[in-house]
Amino acid sequence: MNRKTSHRNWKNKLHEIIYEADTPAGKSFDVIILIMILASIILVMLESVSFINDKYASLFNILEWIITIVFTIEYFLRIIAINKPRKYIFSFFGIIDLLSTIPKYLSVLFVGTHALVALRALRLLRVFRILKLARFIGESNNLVKALKASRVKISVFLLAVIIVSIVLGTVMYLIEGSEHGFNSIPKSVYWCIVTLTTVGYGDISPETPLGQFIASIIMVLGYGIIAVPTGIVSAEFAQQSKEKLPLNTQHCSNCNTDNHVDGAKFCFRCGEDLHNE
Amino acid sequence: MNRKTSHRNWKNKLHEIIYEADTPAGKSFDVIILIMILASIILVMLESVSFINDKYASLFNILEWIITIVFTIEYFLRIIAINKPRKYIFSFFGIIDLLSTIPKYLSVLFVGTHALVALRALRLLRVFRILKLARFIGESNNLVKALKASRVKISVFLLAVIIVSIVLGTVMYLIEGSEHGFNSIPKSVYWCIVTLTTVGYGDISPETPLGQFIASIIMVLGYGIIAVPTGIVSAEFAQQSKEKLPLNTQHCSNCNTDNHVDGAKFCFRCGEDLHNE
Amino acid sequence: MNRKTSHRNWKNKLHEIIYEADTPAGKSFDVIILIMILASIILVMLESVSFINDKYASLFNILEWIITIVFTIEYFLRIIAINKPRKYIFSFFGIIDLLSTIPKYLSVLFVGTHALVALRALRLLRVFRILKLARFIGESNNLVKALKASRVKISVFLLAVIIVSIVLGTVMYLIEGSEHGFNSIPKSVYWCIVTLTTVGYGDISPETPLGQFIASIIMVLGYGIIAVPTGIVSAEFAQQSKEKLPLNTQHCSNCNTDNHVDGAKFCFRCGEDLHNE
Amino acid sequence: MNRKTSHRNWKNKLHEIIYEADTPAGKSFDVIILIMILASIILVMLESVSFINDKYASLFNILEWIITIVFTIEYFLRIIAINKPRKYIFSFFGIIDLLSTIPKYLSVLFVGTHALVALRALRLLRVFRILKLARFIGESNNLVKALKASRVKISVFLLAVIIVSIVLGTVMYLIEGSEHGFNSIPKSVYWCIVTLTTVGYGDISPETPLGQFIASIIMVLGYGIIAVPTGIVSAEFAQQSKEKLPLNTQHCSNCNTDNHVDGAKFCFRCGEDLHNE
Repeated sequence: MNRKTSHRNWKNKLHEIIYEADTPAGKSFDVIILIMILASIILVMLESVSFINDKYASLFNILEWIITIVFTIEYFLRIIAINKPRKYIFSFFGIIDLLSTIPKYLSVLFVGTHALVALRALRLLRVFRILKLARFIGESNNLVKALKASRVKISVFLLAVIIVSIVLGTVMYLIEGSEHGFNSIPKSVYWCIVTLTTVGYGDISPETPLGQFIASIIMVLGYGIIAVPTGIVSAEFAQQSKEKLPLNTQHCSNCNTDNHVDGAKFCFRCGEDLHNE
Repeated sequence: MNRKTSHRNWKNKLHEIIYEADTPAGKSFDVIILIMILASIILVMLESVSFINDKYASLFNILEWIITIVFTIEYFLRIIAINKPRKYIFSFFGIIDLLSTIPKYLSVLFVGTHALVALRALRLLRVFRILKLARFIGESNNLVKALKASRVKISVFLLAVIIVSIVLGTVMYLIEGSEHGFNSIPKSVYWCIVTLTTVGYGDISPETPLGQFIASIIMVLGYGIIAVPTGIVSAEFAQQSKEKLPLNTQHCSNCNTDNHVDGAKFCFRCGEDLHNE
Repeated sequence: MNRKTSHRNWKNKLHEIIYEADTPAGKSFDVIILIMILASIILVMLESVSFINDKYASLFNILEWIITIVFTIEYFLRIIAINKPRKYIFSFFGIIDLLSTIPKYLSVLFVGTHALVALRALRLLRVFRILKLARFIGESNNLVKALKASRVKISVFLLAVIIVSIVLGTVMYLIEGSEHGFNSIPKSVYWCIVTLTTVGYGDISPETPLGQFIASIIMVLGYGIIAVPTGIVSAEFAQQSKEKLPLNTQHCSNCNTDNHVDGAKFCFRCGEDLHNE
Repeated sequence: MNRKTSHRNWKNKLHEIIYEADTPAGKSFDVIILIMILASIILVMLESVSFINDKYASLFNILEWIITIVFTIEYFLRIIAINKPRKYIFSFFGIIDLLSTIPKYLSVLFVGTHALVALRALRLLRVFRILKLARFIGESNNLVKALKASRVKISVFLLAVIIVSIVLGTVMYLIEGSEHGFNSIPKSVYWCIVTLTTVGYGDISPETPLGQFIASIIMVLGYGIIAVPTGIVSAEFAQQSKEKLPLNTQHCSNCNTDNHVDGAKFCFRCGEDLHNE
């Protein structure tokens, strides 16, 4: 699998700029998109504050259009630059990228007030683009690996927490009853999770002596078992610090796989040339 | 101790299906019961939400009957399949399994409204069946072992937490008094546990400067000593990761002991053949 | 230093029973006192609940007298059994033991209602006797040792927490002001500790956008730095598990020193014979 | 680089007293300043409590003047004693030290009530001087080092927490809406941080079943991922305990660098003689 045509060459360059962050051009592209994402999120946030939106509605409208156009261009470039566009279009980020652009265009078509409210809600999905930031964080690989390695143990622990919450929530529903805010089992289970995780809103709190006694047991339990996930992850971190592999941000232009080892010449999944001279 | 009669053979097969999860039939049986348990719990939960129950009461009634009949069949199969039925009947799960079935039958006999309320409460005990899920979690053995190994240390820690809570709760009762919600020592101790475990409902909170000062000390104390159980369990996990033994889900058909080592041919407790060819 | 007179012999026996828990007689004495302490604490607690006290006041009075007399006898036995009684009398537990007995006797002398309220408060000090339970917990030595070894580091951490709380509390006082409940710096510092330790009562909570922003930073900070004491104690536990010495509950009859190594024949502090044949 | 003139000699002495804590004179100076800082902070705190300030306003005024004069003298001594005064003047503590003195002098010039309020606020900045306490804590070096070493990992973790908070906060804004207190995205994000860090004020809490379900997920998530920073810092502490270097509190009289190794004769940054015979 080699470079054949100049068309391929041009596409490879574009792929490098858009999907990788190892060249200066790729870095600049990423930084620009990053700034646009942050700007769009701040915009979405400010628009949701009614008294700010009332004042700067027209300014926000112009900024929305600028961001929408930039995101539209980025979306089409991403489709053009990749060999298998369907893989990108139907990926999580492909869908989010599409949903980030269309609401503003739709707002021209539908002009009723009701439609506008729904579109505003749709625009909020742009917030998910912030997850793209994760790509810029080199160290995050280690965190994610440690969490992945202890995935099974943590799932078991969380399942245990949920089982305990359902059982103790039902017990509290029987003891306290609806006159003290425990008016259904799901709500009691919600209260139990609030207590076990030591959040403790206080929107519902036990009022009978027996209820307060059992609540105390739940709290001490929650306070004690927080040690379990901590112990799991600590052990994982200790083990992980021994084995380390340097990875970079290259994406294969054929199958879009990332996490290639530094210096890798071919994609470890499909064998495509990674264009590292 | 060998297989002697065909009756024994048939019973062994049943035992394998019901009490073990290593054969395809055993797995299917477990999955069906698991789904029924989850369905019954969701049913119990939905019934407790008054506005949902008002709407679908008759549908819920039919589903209750289906679940009750399945659980009844399961209960009798479990008694038949085991050599020493009394061991199962008087075990924790034996009692829970029985209590899961009888309320619906009783509801036919007693038709007064008062009796129905009591029966509904009894039906809620079915939630405890969710604990059977624990069996499906392979990794849970490790968690339970780590917690068991540090049982003494954690008990000491929790006892210390309780002693500190009683002493500081009494102190706060003297300082704040009943006009600020600390109207008895048990309630003050409850407040102290709420604070020490960093739950913090806010249903009772100190209002005098001295009370807030001591509350601050309790909080910082609670924030600091959470490190103790975490340290205990972390140390236990680190040690445990060295020594591991592969266990399976087989139950002895004679004495119902589980946690046999993979490949074991005889029960390690009573010497009964485990029927592994 | 040997046994000389039969008087000395009799005193040694008494010392063994009262101050040590290694002989059957010593164990029985400790268990009786333990039960009396727990009973007296439950009594103090129940008396503080007004509607229970109104009902059983006369019963509680009789039980109070029984407990008081037992504690009085214990107090005098402790003084007689030890060589240097002043060491016991002016120790923390000596003072607590005295304060546990006198309020009931004083209640006979002073019969005004005002005096009774003050005496009831004094009686609550009996709660501190629960700390004697600590002696029965063998494993607590390890916990206490781990905490003592990391004492300096934890103090530094807590000092840092207090400094951060004072600085950020003052900042919040300036931002939020008294109209949102931050009506003095000490109260703002209290709020900051409530937030930093993740307790979060909600009796005071920020209402300005800037205040909520800074509160978010404090929360994330508190959530992050909880790792520090945990890391300290975990490291200490890991190191401690290597070095262990078996200690017993013997007290020297001369100087009342405890924590003697199993099999020790003489007190490691004063050289007194420990009477182990 | 040697001592040349008697002027230089006198200046070195002053530098030793003011900037170092290894000589008796230096220690005394530090202790006096420390007491003054604590006194001034307590004064600022008490003044903020309106009912105390109303009573002792004139006493507080006198004490303010004493503290102001001491701090003024200290400020000028610090400028005189150092070779490059600009380095001190424009450092964080240089600015704080200046801001600690001027408000009282300004209160003589401006006598309007409005100006006084602003000046009182300025005086509160004195609280930042408490950070100077950090210098006295020998062990803090280790804590700071452990936190610095895991800086990148903790930043990544906190960034992840912020991203998750923004995404889930927006989701909750859509679900709950302004009628349940989630009246803008920034406020929803604030609520999400309150929940994720297990603080849980309860000033805003979800009221729709779906909102409570997602809130439960956020809580369990927050309860689980607290393990991550703990694991990071624990690993760091374990590694750090191997490599240790004894440092002292000497400051170079030329460039004000501190953290010199015990017994060092020259500044490791600029080569200036540290005057250790």
